[in-house]
Amino acid sequence: MLKYTLKKKCGHARLGEVRTDHSTIPTPVFMPVGTQATVKTCTAEEVAETGSKILLANTYHLYLRPGHDLVKRAGGLHSFMNWQGSILTDSGGFQVFSLDSLRKISDEGVLFRSHLDGSKHMFTPEKVMEIEMALGSDIAMCFDECAPYPSDHDYVAKAMERTYDWAKRCKAVHHHEYQNLFGIIQGGAFEDLRKISAEQITSLGFCGYGIGGLSVGEPKDKMYEMLEVLDPLMPEDKPRYLMGVGSPDCLVEGVKRGVDMFDCVLPTRIARNGTVFVREGKLVLRNATYAEDHHVIEEGCGCYACRHGYTRGYIRHLLKAGEVLGIRLTTFHNLFFLQKLMADIRLSLLEDRFDDFYKDFFARYRF
Amino acid sequence: MLKYTLKKKCGHARLGEVRTDHSTIPTPVFMPVGTQATVKTCTAEEVAETGSKILLANTYHLYLRPGHDLVKRAGGLHSFMNWQGSILTDSGGFQVFSLDSLRKISDEGVLFRSHLDGSKHMFTPEKVMEIEMALGSDIAMCFDECAPYPSDHDYVAKAMERTYDWAKRCKAVHHHEYQNLFGIIQGGAFEDLRKISAEQITSLGFCGYGIGGLSVGEPKDKMYEMLEVLDPLMPEDKPRYLMGVGSPDCLVEGVKRGVDMFDCVLPTRIARNGTVFVREGKLVLRNATYAEDHHVIEEGCGCYACRHGYTRGYIRHLLKAGEVLGIRLTTFHNLFFLQKLMADIRLSLLEDRFDDFYKDFFARYRF
Repeated sequence: MLKYTLKKKCGHARLGEVRTDHSTIPTPVFMPVGTQATVKTCTAEEVAETGSKILLANTYHLYLRPGHDLVKRAGGLHSFMNWQGSILTDSGGFQVFSLDSLRKISDEGVLFRSHLDGSKHMFTPEKVMEIEMALGSDIAMCFDECAPYPSDHDYVAKAMERTYDWAKRCKAVHHHEYQNLFGIIQGGAFEDLRKISAEQITSLGFCGYGIGGLSVGEPKDKMYEMLEVLDPLMPEDKPRYLMGVGSPDCLVEGVKRGVDMFDCVLPTRIARNGTVFVREGKLVLRNATYAEDHHVIEEGCGCYACRHGYTRGYIRHLLKAGEVLGIRLTTFHNLFFLQKLMADIRLSLLEDRFDDFYKDFFARYRF
Repeated sequence: MLKYTLKKKCGHARLGEVRTDHSTIPTPVFMPVGTQATVKTCTAEEVAETGSKILLANTYHLYLRPGHDLVKRAGGLHSFMNWQGSILTDSGGFQVFSLDSLRKISDEGVLFRSHLDGSKHMFTPEKVMEIEMALGSDIAMCFDECAPYPSDHDYVAKAMERTYDWAKRCKAVHHHEYQNLFGIIQGGAFEDLRKISAEQITSLGFCGYGIGGLSVGEPKDKMYEMLEVLDPLMPEDKPRYLMGVGSPDCLVEGVKRGVDMFDCVLPTRIARNGTVFVREGKLVLRNATYAEDHHVIEEGCGCYACRHGYTRGYIRHLLKAGEVLGIRLTTFHNLFFLQKLMADIRLSLLEDRFDDFYKDFFARYRF
């Protein structure tokens, strides 16, 4: 079972630890995304080498391919994908609401078409629990309705009420011994709805709380405002997980507002476009300016690519030539960068200097 | 400078060692191909981990992108691609003769169009030497004319004479202190021409000898016949390199006929199609039959994929889902498989049991 320990607070920022049956995860933590049971381009050992103790896998994708029953027969997702750490599965809600424009939403659930072959499928809270239990992740998310941004107050309120109803149904059928169920707070960018949703979902008593419906197109300030609304409304002794957030500045701002867990495809996605994180912001390595740059991506970086001496010029050549190694090296770097950022944040919390860390970070970081 | 030591012979098979400034290479050896300065999907460290001490890079591709001058300014190919072992560069001849159907061949050289942008370029023996010296490989190949198969006797004879003329021109301008120039014997599938070409090329005195114009579509028996013709005509104290050959059966047959070095894109190319080598032949892992196969590719195999426990079922899922990790795992396995095969061959030569090895191999190997 999951155990969260809050070790200390610096303002609203929280230093803690999440323990599951598979790993002990220092928080705040960034979780890389392994949509199809693989963090794109990486082996499980390589993901672990970047410092990750937990990754996220997508329920929607694995349900469609290879199928949750097949994964279960393979011994569950850990065994199937050869990952020794912890796994969090999302609810598939975000995908069924965003990938299929012809979906049909009812109180019962969501009828949607597969992005692979157009076949029709129905996700209900009960079905999603069945899938997540079959996958056997350490942390399962409740099936929720994520309203798009912008949506009007009425629409978001209805989605929030449905999310509450579905959370009750999820909790009623979830019975996996080792899997820990997290509720999801919705309410869009409306302060009043966020307060109601936080009250509704926390009243049900989950192992942790997801903050959904943010990072979906709203201004960052609006997201930070909602986090400030939610911080005092969530129980101190459970982890809080801001879903779909992974840019360095948002991670730092999220920690400052009491978030413990984050996930995002950003580091791996931009890596495949040839963009890498550095202390000062981002570099677009495909640019001609790097063609004869014989430096590593970032001096002193401990990632595989930098540690072994792969140069910006060589990586640019690989990216231009369409060679897989190019996106592997940028992926290594970006995953390591975010793990290092979170480790630095945790150290600053431990040493009571998070405020200084925050100031230093934004003094050098260019958007 | 290159030093070849013939350690012992078992029939025509040769156990030896090639030393360059970058590595000591036990022979017979299989060289993986890093066309665009990367063995597809692998880091340099991973290629080394499979047991490779030498790899091949393509002059034609690197000339077009990123350009040999850029590579030279980056400190040469070893430095550019971060490879600590030896490198052999081909002459580009095979590519300019096979990739562009509108090429113009003259005694001066070959006018061809880039496969990247259609731009026109001229390769002459002098130009190719300039490129290979700029790349700074340990072993450079002479620019040659590789006749397609089938071609008539007259055509192949002319290509052979031109190859002789070009070999002289290559030797005349090659002046790289640490780079070792290999001549290439042509003559197609004609015994008389092979004899003449061997006499012509060996008379010029190179550091080693490539056998070109084979494995271009002729029956395997014809290739083996040509190797038997050439074996007594090549100097014993220089390495012999059969170009473009890499299927397990051809490697064993080539060694039996006195070949020391081989290269081929086969292991990496079939890996990208989801096909892997095993002791009994090949497995097509994309097939549905492997969907719930929880075994590693080959029990007891020491490759990264098998050693870490990645299953056929998981690899199939990755291949079907278009995930890079799938082709990485099959590539690891295939590269390791061929290095292990060559190591087993060398051990059998050392222990005077190559004939038994040969019989055992073909008793279990299915084409």
